[in-house]
Amino acid sequence: MAPLRIASIPGDGIGPEVVSATIQVLQQLSKTLGTFEIDFTHVPWGTDYYKKNGRYIPDDALTTLRQFDAVLFGAVGAPDVPDHVSLWGLLLAIRGPLQLYANVRPVRTFPGTKSPLDTAKKGIDWMLVRENSEGEYSGQGGRSHVGQQWEAATEVAMFTRVGIERIIRFAFETAQSRPKKQLTVVTKSNSMRNGMVLWDEIAASVAKEFPDVTWDKMLVDAMTVRMVMKPQSLDTIVGTNLHMDILSDLAAALAGSIGIAPSSNLDPTRKNPSMFEPVHGSAFDITGKGIANPVGTFWSAAEMLSWLGEKDASNKLLVCIEEVCAAGFVTADLGGSCNTQQVVDAVCAEIQKLG
Amino acid sequence: MAPLRIASIPGDGIGPEVVSATIQVLQQLSKTLGTFEIDFTHVPWGTDYYKKNGRYIPDDALTTLRQFDAVLFGAVGAPDVPDHVSLWGLLLAIRGPLQLYANVRPVRTFPGTKSPLDTAKKGIDWMLVRENSEGEYSGQGGRSHVGQQWEAATEVAMFTRVGIERIIRFAFETAQSRPKKQLTVVTKSNSMRNGMVLWDEIAASVAKEFPDVTWDKMLVDAMTVRMVMKPQSLDTIVGTNLHMDILSDLAAALAGSIGIAPSSNLDPTRKNPSMFEPVHGSAFDITGKGIANPVGTFWSAAEMLSWLGEKDASNKLLVCIEEVCAAGFVTADLGGSCNTQQVVDAVCAEIQKLG
Ligand SMILES: CC(C)[C@H](C(=O)O)[C@@H](O)C(=O)O
Ligand SMILES: CC(C)[C@H](C(=O)O)[C@@H](O)C(=O)O
Repeated sequence: MAPLRIASIPGDGIGPEVVSATIQVLQQLSKTLGTFEIDFTHVPWGTDYYKKNGRYIPDDALTTLRQFDAVLFGAVGAPDVPDHVSLWGLLLAIRGPLQLYANVRPVRTFPGTKSPLDTAKKGIDWMLVRENSEGEYSGQGGRSHVGQQWEAATEVAMFTRVGIERIIRFAFETAQSRPKKQLTVVTKSNSMRNGMVLWDEIAASVAKEFPDVTWDKMLVDAMTVRMVMKPQSLDTIVGTNLHMDILSDLAAALAGSIGIAPSSNLDPTRKNPSMFEPVHGSAFDITGKGIANPVGTFWSAAEMLSWLGEKDASNKLLVCIEEVCAAGFVTADLGGSCNTQQVVDAVCAEIQKLG
Repeated sequence: MAPLRIASIPGDGIGPEVVSATIQVLQQLSKTLGTFEIDFTHVPWGTDYYKKNGRYIPDDALTTLRQFDAVLFGAVGAPDVPDHVSLWGLLLAIRGPLQLYANVRPVRTFPGTKSPLDTAKKGIDWMLVRENSEGEYSGQGGRSHVGQQWEAATEVAMFTRVGIERIIRFAFETAQSRPKKQLTVVTKSNSMRNGMVLWDEIAASVAKEFPDVTWDKMLVDAMTVRMVMKPQSLDTIVGTNLHMDILSDLAAALAGSIGIAPSSNLDPTRKNPSMFEPVHGSAFDITGKGIANPVGTFWSAAEMLSWLGEKDASNKLLVCIEEVCAAGFVTADLGGSCNTQQVVDAVCAEIQKLG
């Protein structure tokens, strides 16, 4: 049995804490189940690396990552480096260039968390699909006449037919695989008349390939209202890089599970390794205290196992995490009193019961 | 006493119904109070005009509007015209070109409505300031190789130092005039490195002029989380055209008052007439039934009176609207059984009590 080869990029802040917690849990899972082997290679990119080398990743970074089956990512960002430098230096230097074009974020009320919404007392269960390789995050634009009173700056969102088609098709497939078979396509085509209108056109055309999926369109502003007022009316949701960046944070907040939200950066063609990361950032205010909540990274790791074909292990891991959360073995941000290692130990103990 | 000269553009759908409702109410207010006179001139722009003339507004539209003290706007958009055609044809052809650069949206839990949030049981009271003349709504961008597999399209957000400075200064002034004297500046400068970084720089510099205002910065995605989780921690909020378009809809939904949200499109230099409009759209599904909720337009009209110096009349109108809503004289969307005219009559009766 060939082991799963995972590149781990712990990165900055609490990244190393949650990644090392997750490695312990995955190793326990592998040992107890005996159905898969897993092998981690530490990749030391992050702000320390940047301070030593003047850049966040080496020239051959993508080649390095291509040697692995998947990447487990912690967090990037440090108080003394502008965010746009660290994020474009590391995270966004991987997502786009490696063509990890589908950022997938399951959002649901999780055991031990609860929705702050009156309208969602029955819970929330959404699947958010974010275009992850172009659009508002193309990195294009610039500043002219810097510092002058007539300074002007642009942010250019670049959309391509290929880029839109592939993410919309992926979203329809995702919707098709879920019980409700329902997709909502988010755009802002009433005020943005080029790329957004192209999104609308492509959605209408790709939809014809999926007659069994019920779909509709929403403007991004009206979508926030629907998420708040009629959460049960939504299932799978797809939109642009920026729109879904915003809506996925909102979604996790509405579901009550922002601190534990997972995300998958997928290359659905499987030419490149996909990358899995918790949605939370480097959280320097609690770094080094051993109290970071590792559940978002556990959940991301469960998504990783599933993506790599280990669906049974993935499901079992998720169930163990849910048991532990439901039993109240959670960190302070979820109202508990555990530290990171205690959560790890509780999950490992739960896994051992599977043996 | 010179009358206030108001251009009314009822527009499409329920626009004419809510604008005529509002004219009745303002005329009653003028009659009862006797402190101001008001004179409405009907301006027939909208989709009917477009179908007759091939465009939404005539060449001299801005000159026409400049003859008035303010504009009261209903709604624009019709089922058989693409939204981007009608919106750019009328609404966005006024906002930007007339330099109505501050779109102001008070958002609060209103009598007769309630927040769906557990975290906002004490109510919400925010003042949202949206840049209204540039940014993502600059109208720039295009499509190349239309229909080819390699088609590419751009949406270009254009930011200028002047445009940013004036809206941020306006927002600080707005914050300064409110009891909490607190401002949150929203950007997305971790992933957008040009115009968004310029926003950050200008915010930090303008802030120095307002030492008595407490201010902070938020990323737009994290902002949605804060609005949901800690609504009491916010007061005045400023951001770009697109960001605040999204956040203002979210805000009104979280406050429970989306159906009645007002908005002011202001030229703070007062060179041009400002424009006041309800946030809801043309709502063709209920058009012509006489059941549209006029409260968003009443509230917008109260903002208009205040802008035109009639603060006492504005406050009195608001109190009357609140009384009527609290007493349950509301339309079906707010859980009542009144039609539009019954709400008008109730508000007019309330106004007469002031006499
Ligand atoms: C870290 C940052 C670049 C990022 C984004 O905006 O994509 C984050 O908010 C996310 O959602 O993954
Ligand atoms: C009608 C439309 C152009 C508009 C916008 O996006 O600005 C609306 O959503 C608003 O908030 O005023």
